[in-house]
Amino acid sequence: MTDQTPTNDSAPAETQSVPQPAARQVGYAVIGLGELTLEELLPAWAVGKRSRLAAVVSDDHDKALRAARAYGLTEADAYSYDTFEELQSRPDVQAVYIVLPNSLHREYTERAARIGKHVLCEKPLAGSVEDAGAMVAACRDAGVKLMTAYRCQYTPLHWRARDLVQGGDLGSVKLIHSVNVQVEPAGGWRLKRELAGGGSLLDVGLYCLNTIRFLLGTEPTSLWAQTHSTPGDPRFGEVEESVTWVMTFPGGVTAQCSCSYGAAHTRTLDVYGSEGRLQLDPAFDYTNLNLRVHTPEAITEHRLKETDQFALEIDHFSACIQEGREPFTPGEEGLQDQRLMDAIYRSARTGQPVTLDPVPGTDAFRGPLPARTPDARD
Amino acid sequence: MTDQTPTNDSAPAETQSVPQPAARQVGYAVIGLGELTLEELLPAWAVGKRSRLAAVVSDDHDKALRAARAYGLTEADAYSYDTFEELQSRPDVQAVYIVLPNSLHREYTERAARIGKHVLCEKPLAGSVEDAGAMVAACRDAGVKLMTAYRCQYTPLHWRARDLVQGGDLGSVKLIHSVNVQVEPAGGWRLKRELAGGGSLLDVGLYCLNTIRFLLGTEPTSLWAQTHSTPGDPRFGEVEESVTWVMTFPGGVTAQCSCSYGAAHTRTLDVYGSEGRLQLDPAFDYTNLNLRVHTPEAITEHRLKETDQFALEIDHFSACIQEGREPFTPGEEGLQDQRLMDAIYRSARTGQPVTLDPVPGTDAFRGPLPARTPDARD
Amino acid sequence: MTDQTPTNDSAPAETQSVPQPAARQVGYAVIGLGELTLEELLPAWAVGKRSRLAAVVSDDHDKALRAARAYGLTEADAYSYDTFEELQSRPDVQAVYIVLPNSLHREYTERAARIGKHVLCEKPLAGSVEDAGAMVAACRDAGVKLMTAYRCQYTPLHWRARDLVQGGDLGSVKLIHSVNVQVEPAGGWRLKRELAGGGSLLDVGLYCLNTIRFLLGTEPTSLWAQTHSTPGDPRFGEVEESVTWVMTFPGGVTAQCSCSYGAAHTRTLDVYGSEGRLQLDPAFDYTNLNLRVHTPEAITEHRLKETDQFALEIDHFSACIQEGREPFTPGEEGLQDQRLMDAIYRSARTGQPVTLDPVPGTDAFRGPLPARTPDARD
Amino acid sequence: MTDQTPTNDSAPAETQSVPQPAARQVGYAVIGLGELTLEELLPAWAVGKRSRLAAVVSDDHDKALRAARAYGLTEADAYSYDTFEELQSRPDVQAVYIVLPNSLHREYTERAARIGKHVLCEKPLAGSVEDAGAMVAACRDAGVKLMTAYRCQYTPLHWRARDLVQGGDLGSVKLIHSVNVQVEPAGGWRLKRELAGGGSLLDVGLYCLNTIRFLLGTEPTSLWAQTHSTPGDPRFGEVEESVTWVMTFPGGVTAQCSCSYGAAHTRTLDVYGSEGRLQLDPAFDYTNLNLRVHTPEAITEHRLKETDQFALEIDHFSACIQEGREPFTPGEEGLQDQRLMDAIYRSARTGQPVTLDPVPGTDAFRGPLPARTPDARD
Repeated sequence: MTDQTPTNDSAPAETQSVPQPAARQVGYAVIGLGELTLEELLPAWAVGKRSRLAAVVSDDHDKALRAARAYGLTEADAYSYDTFEELQSRPDVQAVYIVLPNSLHREYTERAARIGKHVLCEKPLAGSVEDAGAMVAACRDAGVKLMTAYRCQYTPLHWRARDLVQGGDLGSVKLIHSVNVQVEPAGGWRLKRELAGGGSLLDVGLYCLNTIRFLLGTEPTSLWAQTHSTPGDPRFGEVEESVTWVMTFPGGVTAQCSCSYGAAHTRTLDVYGSEGRLQLDPAFDYTNLNLRVHTPEAITEHRLKETDQFALEIDHFSACIQEGREPFTPGEEGLQDQRLMDAIYRSARTGQPVTLDPVPGTDAFRGPLPARTPDARD
Repeated sequence: MTDQTPTNDSAPAETQSVPQPAARQVGYAVIGLGELTLEELLPAWAVGKRSRLAAVVSDDHDKALRAARAYGLTEADAYSYDTFEELQSRPDVQAVYIVLPNSLHREYTERAARIGKHVLCEKPLAGSVEDAGAMVAACRDAGVKLMTAYRCQYTPLHWRARDLVQGGDLGSVKLIHSVNVQVEPAGGWRLKRELAGGGSLLDVGLYCLNTIRFLLGTEPTSLWAQTHSTPGDPRFGEVEESVTWVMTFPGGVTAQCSCSYGAAHTRTLDVYGSEGRLQLDPAFDYTNLNLRVHTPEAITEHRLKETDQFALEIDHFSACIQEGREPFTPGEEGLQDQRLMDAIYRSARTGQPVTLDPVPGTDAFRGPLPARTPDARD
Repeated sequence: MTDQTPTNDSAPAETQSVPQPAARQVGYAVIGLGELTLEELLPAWAVGKRSRLAAVVSDDHDKALRAARAYGLTEADAYSYDTFEELQSRPDVQAVYIVLPNSLHREYTERAARIGKHVLCEKPLAGSVEDAGAMVAACRDAGVKLMTAYRCQYTPLHWRARDLVQGGDLGSVKLIHSVNVQVEPAGGWRLKRELAGGGSLLDVGLYCLNTIRFLLGTEPTSLWAQTHSTPGDPRFGEVEESVTWVMTFPGGVTAQCSCSYGAAHTRTLDVYGSEGRLQLDPAFDYTNLNLRVHTPEAITEHRLKETDQFALEIDHFSACIQEGREPFTPGEEGLQDQRLMDAIYRSARTGQPVTLDPVPGTDAFRGPLPARTPDARD
Repeated sequence: MTDQTPTNDSAPAETQSVPQPAARQVGYAVIGLGELTLEELLPAWAVGKRSRLAAVVSDDHDKALRAARAYGLTEADAYSYDTFEELQSRPDVQAVYIVLPNSLHREYTERAARIGKHVLCEKPLAGSVEDAGAMVAACRDAGVKLMTAYRCQYTPLHWRARDLVQGGDLGSVKLIHSVNVQVEPAGGWRLKRELAGGGSLLDVGLYCLNTIRFLLGTEPTSLWAQTHSTPGDPRFGEVEESVTWVMTFPGGVTAQCSCSYGAAHTRTLDVYGSEGRLQLDPAFDYTNLNLRVHTPEAITEHRLKETDQFALEIDHFSACIQEGREPFTPGEEGLQDQRLMDAIYRSARTGQPVTLDPVPGTDAFRGPLPARTPDARD
């Protein structure tokens, strides 16, 4: 059967299909072997077209060995946090992907920069504004690239949404609502302030914040927020359960966002314009993203070929390394979100609206627009 | 064909089908012949089972005559605003339905109360808290019933939603989002402060406010709000275009709402609980309401037989009149919404959160729960 | 709230809203007070714009009186089958609507024609080809109009579907599938051959047959069919439970249809073309019809304002009476379906394909296209 | 973000995540480097947990080299059709996956069997009943396993559907409709009789046939069919464009199927029972499969974690090889479909229904039920 789900473009089949020779692909060391790495990232490298897994770094040596062997690596490719710097002598490892608790991002970024490796870092960029700023500086000083791993800025569906919003298909944009909630089980590092740096805002609320900024291309001028944790719920002794916040963007566009660690998995984003509504539901899941545009005449569901989102994101960074470009979501983009999350927490503490410094222009903290190739933007 | 869309209950078909004899039904005079009356209410009386149209009141005599004749009334049944009081001598007219600009609700309620007619009043109850309070007092003093025409508290689907929320089907409720927006064309009375008393909040935002209160059964303890009108849009010189507000309810449930006169028709309400999400989309339309519950295992769309919503609402008031009961949404219920909308505007003016007086109990401003009959709650 | 669900056209609100004066509307006597009449037709007259209920005919006098009173008629407006002919002296009753078991359609059509009343007859037109032919002849000879009550040829959604199919929006039409099934409870007249004339084909399968013919505008050239009744199910001793049949239309379009009295309520119709798929699901319900077009790029759900389907159908007949036009679905249209159902049963009996006489042209058995007014086609 | 889309079971995360060591996985040589191989199968091996790519076979040496290098193989792993037999000396290659035009399946199955390799063969098993029978015999005689690559018998969603159908959730099954159509472009081997052995039936219609048999577990007892090719369409000079057929299963269940090479991509399957309808739409796509159950009370969309369908299928064969089990869809299962497709063509040629030999029992041509592990059935 020829599956005729439409491709996203009309590139030659060959281009779409066959990855670069493995030897020419950018080699990565992945740091951290948690669920995200095991379930999503290791398979993503396996289907990436410009990227390959070259080493694994973990303090659980058995786990590292199992992962290495499962994906065709050898014992020599399994490193510990102590031996991490030995990667310096591996020219086939050009980059690292940091998948550690937030508060460790800074340390490993700095260590990677010191040994000359480019850094792709999981979101949030860090556990604090200060750390995020230091990471940007460290990579700049070392002459390596730093990219914040915002996969939702690299999928065809989110780009289609951005095109519709910025292209006027909804008329004049008036309001946005976005929700990102999930049930965080007790016991994980995300509930410990020292490791996570904060609660649901840093982990899931960040999607609402970041994707709205991506869709509009502009920066908020003021915001108001409040947090809530269910009294007596032992999970939320150190970090907040829920955050609700309101942001105002240039032109008066108002965005209402909610995130929580206490509500059943839902991830949505709606944009309300004078001529139509754009609905992403789910908006941030790994698969089965759904984009609909509602007008008075019709509800139109856009059909786009889905590709592994992590592979798209990693391949973008590889393309930037191979071609000497800045990533579309560099460290500065992640840093700006840290500043905004800081302001959200500040408003919640004081109960007062926070006015933000105006940021002129569009995509102020982003790199050049990625090329629009059939499967990805790299 | 026997259409087997499920009925909402297992009552005898006869009960469902045949209205009361017309002579025994409650007779209404409708005051105001705008679009809502012509498109929705006149047909609603035609299919109501306890209610019939008995008179029309308008200052456009030709229009009144046409409406009267179209629905089987005579020239004698067409009244003007001047001759309104002549209805006092019509024992077959027990009630009036006021469908006038908001700021006229008080005058006609008081006039109706004076001639001993029960009053069903379109929402919002009035253009101001003061007027709403006066209406409640006038009807109480005159010994006539006053009901706020909140149709969304009388449909099977909204009751199913309330049962799910209050019955624990979603686990512990954490967050709510609700949006009610439409494009209001230039020129109508809704854009004139003197007639409307306010902008999109009073007309469409009220749905979010009122339905959330209905679903939870409790009252908000604090809120924060802001308004926005597009600079240079001539429609919004007197009343606001958009309002976004955040309400906190007992137990920490946070609701984020948006309403607007500047965005394309959308009406949604989502409730996020620890075990699932309830989605009403559309939430407030006259037909084709849709209720879905999302859990990690499934998305379940509830199928309920739709009945004319206005007929359900009017028949509820008729049942209250016939049986000497209080309406489920009496004047007090409408008055409470006016107080809350007043607080929303106050917060928007000051930029400060507003703390509300605590209201203990559930359904504090509502009458006894309506009986659950097959098609309606009357 | 102004409900901004789009209207189907841009006619003046006045035109859409106010019915003709009751005295000028066409008066109907409804014959038969079963569930369809009580639940759907009586309310339909109440909201019709050119049609009013003027008399009820039933052999259950109490029921007739209750129905008459409920809809504003008097005792004098309730007739029995014996006194039916007295309607001759009622000039305010111009038409009858026959809602009786299929095998009685002929008798009452002939009796109505004899007293000069136009006849709107529920589908199927009759219990046999012979009866249907006699009905057409009787009305022609008496100079009264005969219309088959095919509501699915009068709704905006079915016309939109026809426009899409005939307008080439799907490319070249290749295949059609349609299903109409429901669970028929034991005990009703539909399971008695003498009254129904056949089983699920005549009652629900007819929708597939008739709507496909309406969408294409052409007539099938051959067909193959089989029937099935679950052994031992006492409901299906006299009439068949299920029919599956395949029809070929000019150009090779093949339609596969299934109907049943044994499967849970489903009514769908799908058209598969070289460039897209049109999906009606539900296709034949009284409300909440849904029309989607799937192409490789998008799934588009058409939003059309729903109006009471029975009111549209009845108003069309009234318009034809008032303006001296032929109905779009005259008796001849119903007769052609009877011939085709006869051929379906014949194929099922013999196991052989049946070749049908070619019928050139389009809409060969239909009257002039109805005018496209905002709410209806009358 | 922890993506909480539900897993399909509660197995330890470790089990789900980490593949077997690459050295212990079953090694495959893929034969044929068309679109299916490049787009779907090569990535599938990369994410499989028991399977790895070990060699590629193609007569296009450049293409073979590119594919080998892209997936971490060397020049030595690229074979041609002439050097295929050299794989005999590769103990790390235990199996082949044949992805060639249908009429070549027999030759390569026989050649693989002769060199002692297990055979996973794309569907249809062959271009004719005779070839399919010979393949079963060749593998049996050589003591190697033969599996027909029916991916829709290995996904969680299709198994959920089977459980619902066979578990009585729909009540008594009455009717089935299934459609599988796509636009086949001119020029490919699928339109050449010598290579394909037939038209749309063999390629896409087979999905309807095979999945219905899988869901019911039983074999049809009779069928009727017709084919159609648009006159003048040059694509359909050798093979048929469309096939419509009707099958009767034990108990009277009737299935109506359509397939075509001339209609826009649609793949659906609906089962109609006395208590509900099961809807698969899309039913056979590679991703985003959707399963809904409609009852009078609700429409329930089942949410199941999607896993790469080809990886599930390949891993099942690997598990069978590793554990010495018969595949669930052995050659015999594919052979039975060939016999049925032969009967469909025969009926279409003669215009007569075809009676089939009764096959007692359930899953008569299938191997033991696969174990239900979290992600797959292997």
